[in-house]
Amino acid sequence: MAGSTFGTIFQITTWGESHGKALGVVIDGCPAGLPLCESDIQQYLDRRKPGSSSISTPRKEDDTVEILSGVFEGLTTGAPVSLMVRNTSQRSADYGEIAACYRPGHADYTFDAKYGFRDYRGGGRSSGRETIGRVAAGAVAAKILKQLGISVCAYTRSIGPVEIDPAHFDRSAILTTPTAMPDTEADKAAVAYLEEIRKNTDSVGGCMECMVEGLPAGIGDPVFEKLDANLAKAIMSIGAVKAVEIGDGCTVSLRKGSQNNDPFRNNGGQITKAANHAGGILGGISDGGTLRIRAHVKPTPSIFLTQQTVNKDGKEIDINIKGRHDPVIVPRAVVVMECMTALTVLDAMLLNMSARLNHLVEFYAGDDPCQN
Amino acid sequence: MAGSTFGTIFQITTWGESHGKALGVVIDGCPAGLPLCESDIQQYLDRRKPGSSSISTPRKEDDTVEILSGVFEGLTTGAPVSLMVRNTSQRSADYGEIAACYRPGHADYTFDAKYGFRDYRGGGRSSGRETIGRVAAGAVAAKILKQLGISVCAYTRSIGPVEIDPAHFDRSAILTTPTAMPDTEADKAAVAYLEEIRKNTDSVGGCMECMVEGLPAGIGDPVFEKLDANLAKAIMSIGAVKAVEIGDGCTVSLRKGSQNNDPFRNNGGQITKAANHAGGILGGISDGGTLRIRAHVKPTPSIFLTQQTVNKDGKEIDINIKGRHDPVIVPRAVVVMECMTALTVLDAMLLNMSARLNHLVEFYAGDDPCQN
Amino acid sequence: MAGSTFGTIFQITTWGESHGKALGVVIDGCPAGLPLCESDIQQYLDRRKPGSSSISTPRKEDDTVEILSGVFEGLTTGAPVSLMVRNTSQRSADYGEIAACYRPGHADYTFDAKYGFRDYRGGGRSSGRETIGRVAAGAVAAKILKQLGISVCAYTRSIGPVEIDPAHFDRSAILTTPTAMPDTEADKAAVAYLEEIRKNTDSVGGCMECMVEGLPAGIGDPVFEKLDANLAKAIMSIGAVKAVEIGDGCTVSLRKGSQNNDPFRNNGGQITKAANHAGGILGGISDGGTLRIRAHVKPTPSIFLTQQTVNKDGKEIDINIKGRHDPVIVPRAVVVMECMTALTVLDAMLLNMSARLNHLVEFYAGDDPCQN
Amino acid sequence: MAGSTFGTIFQITTWGESHGKALGVVIDGCPAGLPLCESDIQQYLDRRKPGSSSISTPRKEDDTVEILSGVFEGLTTGAPVSLMVRNTSQRSADYGEIAACYRPGHADYTFDAKYGFRDYRGGGRSSGRETIGRVAAGAVAAKILKQLGISVCAYTRSIGPVEIDPAHFDRSAILTTPTAMPDTEADKAAVAYLEEIRKNTDSVGGCMECMVEGLPAGIGDPVFEKLDANLAKAIMSIGAVKAVEIGDGCTVSLRKGSQNNDPFRNNGGQITKAANHAGGILGGISDGGTLRIRAHVKPTPSIFLTQQTVNKDGKEIDINIKGRHDPVIVPRAVVVMECMTALTVLDAMLLNMSARLNHLVEFYAGDDPCQN
Repeated sequence: MAGSTFGTIFQITTWGESHGKALGVVIDGCPAGLPLCESDIQQYLDRRKPGSSSISTPRKEDDTVEILSGVFEGLTTGAPVSLMVRNTSQRSADYGEIAACYRPGHADYTFDAKYGFRDYRGGGRSSGRETIGRVAAGAVAAKILKQLGISVCAYTRSIGPVEIDPAHFDRSAILTTPTAMPDTEADKAAVAYLEEIRKNTDSVGGCMECMVEGLPAGIGDPVFEKLDANLAKAIMSIGAVKAVEIGDGCTVSLRKGSQNNDPFRNNGGQITKAANHAGGILGGISDGGTLRIRAHVKPTPSIFLTQQTVNKDGKEIDINIKGRHDPVIVPRAVVVMECMTALTVLDAMLLNMSARLNHLVEFYAGDDPCQN
Repeated sequence: MAGSTFGTIFQITTWGESHGKALGVVIDGCPAGLPLCESDIQQYLDRRKPGSSSISTPRKEDDTVEILSGVFEGLTTGAPVSLMVRNTSQRSADYGEIAACYRPGHADYTFDAKYGFRDYRGGGRSSGRETIGRVAAGAVAAKILKQLGISVCAYTRSIGPVEIDPAHFDRSAILTTPTAMPDTEADKAAVAYLEEIRKNTDSVGGCMECMVEGLPAGIGDPVFEKLDANLAKAIMSIGAVKAVEIGDGCTVSLRKGSQNNDPFRNNGGQITKAANHAGGILGGISDGGTLRIRAHVKPTPSIFLTQQTVNKDGKEIDINIKGRHDPVIVPRAVVVMECMTALTVLDAMLLNMSARLNHLVEFYAGDDPCQN
Repeated sequence: MAGSTFGTIFQITTWGESHGKALGVVIDGCPAGLPLCESDIQQYLDRRKPGSSSISTPRKEDDTVEILSGVFEGLTTGAPVSLMVRNTSQRSADYGEIAACYRPGHADYTFDAKYGFRDYRGGGRSSGRETIGRVAAGAVAAKILKQLGISVCAYTRSIGPVEIDPAHFDRSAILTTPTAMPDTEADKAAVAYLEEIRKNTDSVGGCMECMVEGLPAGIGDPVFEKLDANLAKAIMSIGAVKAVEIGDGCTVSLRKGSQNNDPFRNNGGQITKAANHAGGILGGISDGGTLRIRAHVKPTPSIFLTQQTVNKDGKEIDINIKGRHDPVIVPRAVVVMECMTALTVLDAMLLNMSARLNHLVEFYAGDDPCQN
Repeated sequence: MAGSTFGTIFQITTWGESHGKALGVVIDGCPAGLPLCESDIQQYLDRRKPGSSSISTPRKEDDTVEILSGVFEGLTTGAPVSLMVRNTSQRSADYGEIAACYRPGHADYTFDAKYGFRDYRGGGRSSGRETIGRVAAGAVAAKILKQLGISVCAYTRSIGPVEIDPAHFDRSAILTTPTAMPDTEADKAAVAYLEEIRKNTDSVGGCMECMVEGLPAGIGDPVFEKLDANLAKAIMSIGAVKAVEIGDGCTVSLRKGSQNNDPFRNNGGQITKAANHAGGILGGISDGGTLRIRAHVKPTPSIFLTQQTVNKDGKEIDINIKGRHDPVIVPRAVVVMECMTALTVLDAMLLNMSARLNHLVEFYAGDDPCQN
């Protein structure tokens, strides 16, 4: 257990490094009977590809997924679903000089400290390419959630100082704007800002947000396996995320109880809330409202300005990083956030099935296994 | 696995509800040979007691811990350490009317949604008293960390608008100020502010911070078990926490790479960093710098103003909560944050022991089990 | 995680040593809504008490269970169920001389080798009293299984050379014979045999068997979490068990395929098997037949004959164990086997609820959490 | 978590079905710095290939392993090691008629009962080919154990009535005899016996045994994670195994304490035992003696005699299985037993590193992460 497994029932194990032969994921615990084909997954992977616009790396990544197991006659069988993407576009030469020194803001030093050496080609396991397995698995989770009437949607909320305007919110723009912003005007401003950043060979941070709609009340477990605790872990585990907020997040520390409590109401026979400061979670368990999660992402550490650092012998040196890097991480990380959220929510729903004795009794009563 | 277990090697399982007979924790995986007695734990539990000042509940909680197992002749034996605190001061009558309705901002509704009914006495398992087990176990973890030269220290950073001044930082004040602020002036201002809040029968949020010093580089695992991901889960699992930040946290989303990267330096033969925006973690693994974690805590949901809600039949009603409640959660939650951090860091250190083959070979070479 | 936790969803953590203050168990993941009181558990604990007959230790153990948490108004709430038994009858003086040497057949040496020292009072954590937590938790699991129409029944099959006669099988005798044999004649012969053994200050081994009836087909998971694999672990984890057999067990290695395969038949519309060599499990998954598990138990290692051993300094010495010990372990271990089986089967049933997508969809369709 | 993951620190996840595109395994938690190449693994996989002799299936399986990740410049990096074997020789036509009915002794019925349908091509996930992942991972574990001075060796003990003679024990024969017997004479007798069995279109069971030498005392955890409990699970999880024995196994139930206890002796300053009835484990923890584990394997369920069964509609039918099957499973399962044992022992050793506080303190004292 060295960190590559996530989830309890819907459990995924990712593998692969940036410049290895391939990357992939094994999903164990996927319910049997789900229609699944490569294109279900490919459309999610395509969202984390670098675009052709000025705001992303000119590196070409053509990540084609292959289903290796767990699907028979178009349906998942209950056996592990193994998904693989072959690496095709690695120019190791670009990374040669990094081998001997520690890039600021990267995991070079910490991997060396932990393992005694490291795969220095493009970050190895700490590369953003590690997220391929997360996204491939998350696509499967999201497909199951859709069958349960639950949608998960992440987008860019801000890039540097450029923020979306909630009044212009347009979900359809998420998949079409280069920034993954749900606001075409903010997108334009952000693209202009990023061109400036790139010209200065610098990078910038940003914020992304995720909404889960349709989730019933009662999902999540008390104490350590709270739904928000697991979401925080899931999202913070995405490289470069430095803060996670649930609902109104950081602003609650300035607020009074009379402002922050969400009143319960009866909405045509359905218990709902008149506000959603809580972001859809109370006591670690979903309350039937929309889940709202926000993540703050640091600027791409690979910048093309001269930086101070040390080499492996501890000698202080100046470093000039070359290569092809995104000036901002957020637009390509949005789908990763969406997928980690889907994985977390689905797993909590599967665990929840055994929470009540009467549900257990109903489930097994009159069970005629080969006929239903 | 319904959420009451935390950790992989140093694994704790907490139990107990606010108005039950007792609360406690079982620590499994505590290394053998640690000197341990009740007072080691009691001093941590005492920090989460309500104080005598105006800022905390007048409820008297006299939580006395008993070590039930796992210690022999003053040392831990490797067997589970079972710790128990008997409940003594439950005035159930105060909570009687809550049984039939859902308090805003509480977990009443979500527990009902999950389990079909709930222990309505004082929140049951969602009560702040649930943290007794965390603190008792965290005291043990902190004692082990101290033997490894690592200190964990949490404190109140702000209460509502009143924030500590870093220039006045005084660690010794944390244990003596009623607010757990390391700044006696800010403490006074916060106490005055809280008296106002209490007069208005309202409550307020706040922010707490935790620092870990002395942690070597190399702790934490890549991908899903990143040290910051596990800290985020640990801290977000504390009731009322709505946001977790690592290092510079939310501010990174506004920053440029050239501002945010921490340069590596050679400090008398030791690799260190000239800045610590990262909060001591790069790629999910400790970098040798001080860990810095911040948590934003919502206002106490129990306020004494009239609030709108529904009862169990879905009827809309007004509710007036009675009882004894803190106007702010933070001062008593600080020790919980410290303990969850200690538990997370220690577990990561235990897991790290098998990261390298040469360490494994050294460990078992010449192992003469009964003589060393 | 030092070995005291068992199960994935219905997860138990036991604690306590033979001569500590108390022993107990925390059950996390117990479905909410189960009627539960102390007597449900006490009746199982009473079955592992030493009897008054000549075949068991004259030690008096009066193990009274207390429910500390997780039950409200007579029903489990979904919160951890904490169960405790206080130790009352420890005569530590009996064990004093063991501290300095390694009893043959006991875990004295191996605990020292692992932990560097040990709790030498009566075996500490390796004592048979450790099973108190297993039995208390197993009683809860068995109560749930009963609600699902599933019975679990263990008994003594043989003691030394005295074996039960299947033709005389009488389930009601299990709870009344001192040997826990379902055959009063074999019981008498075994008691006579044991008196002989005791007279010779020796001890003897035996065999116990467990049957699970009413289990539907489809329970268990392929590959590593096979139902029989988990049963083997559960049963082998009982101290003194040295072999576990499923169905026809060891005899299959001598058999031909034409003799060993169980033909499927149509029994009034129900698929059944015409034989049950497999013991109710095929490919690690239950087949609807009766589960049959057998365990072979070594003789009590505490005998009153002079034995050769070494002391902690490695000096070869003769040892004469004193104290109060059962001449055979099996009659008191039968209820432990029954409980470990119940725990294993229930956990597999809870995990199975999410095996099929259509079950998941049905479960959440139209879920009105507060009304069903 | 649907059963395809094994181990806590050295954790493997296998995937793939008999007639899918490929099979494989992901090893997470492999210590960094192990020299590893494909041939290390291939030599283990070759041992589970069908031979050319009369005793195995004429099916040609050419299982070539590919290392996809986790190895850089010939050393493991600490990242997941992903291993894959492409399927090449699947003649699905052979299995066509099985789709509609339940083969006796196979998992056809139970998979249908669990999942609602199944991959009927050659058993899918319940096929013996599932063990490819176990063997590939076990080869890595065995290589690490070898560096720690520990050898794991499994062999065929008996096939039907033909048993090896301990007096003729010849370890080198295991890899050269078609039966994997360490006794060339018994091998010849067994081959002759199997030719008879094959002529009668029947099959037969057998027994395999595994020895672990060089394991230090102190490995394994008390209570549920006993070393023998985990070995029992590991071995029982191999398809067709119906009984597992540790040390003297089943025979202990007939034995007296005075015969069964192993006396401790001082062997030139080293504590050893004068006998090893216990099979190297006391109280679930290794005692420094040789581990001895035995497994009883049922006859291959695929026989070519007419058998009674039902089809998916419950109609009673006669079935005649065609195809290519081994008359006995044991010779090809021996390497699987060896690998499962290696995986279990290694994982227990990694977990054991944090058992004592003084070891923890020594480990981190003066830790200069980038220089040792």
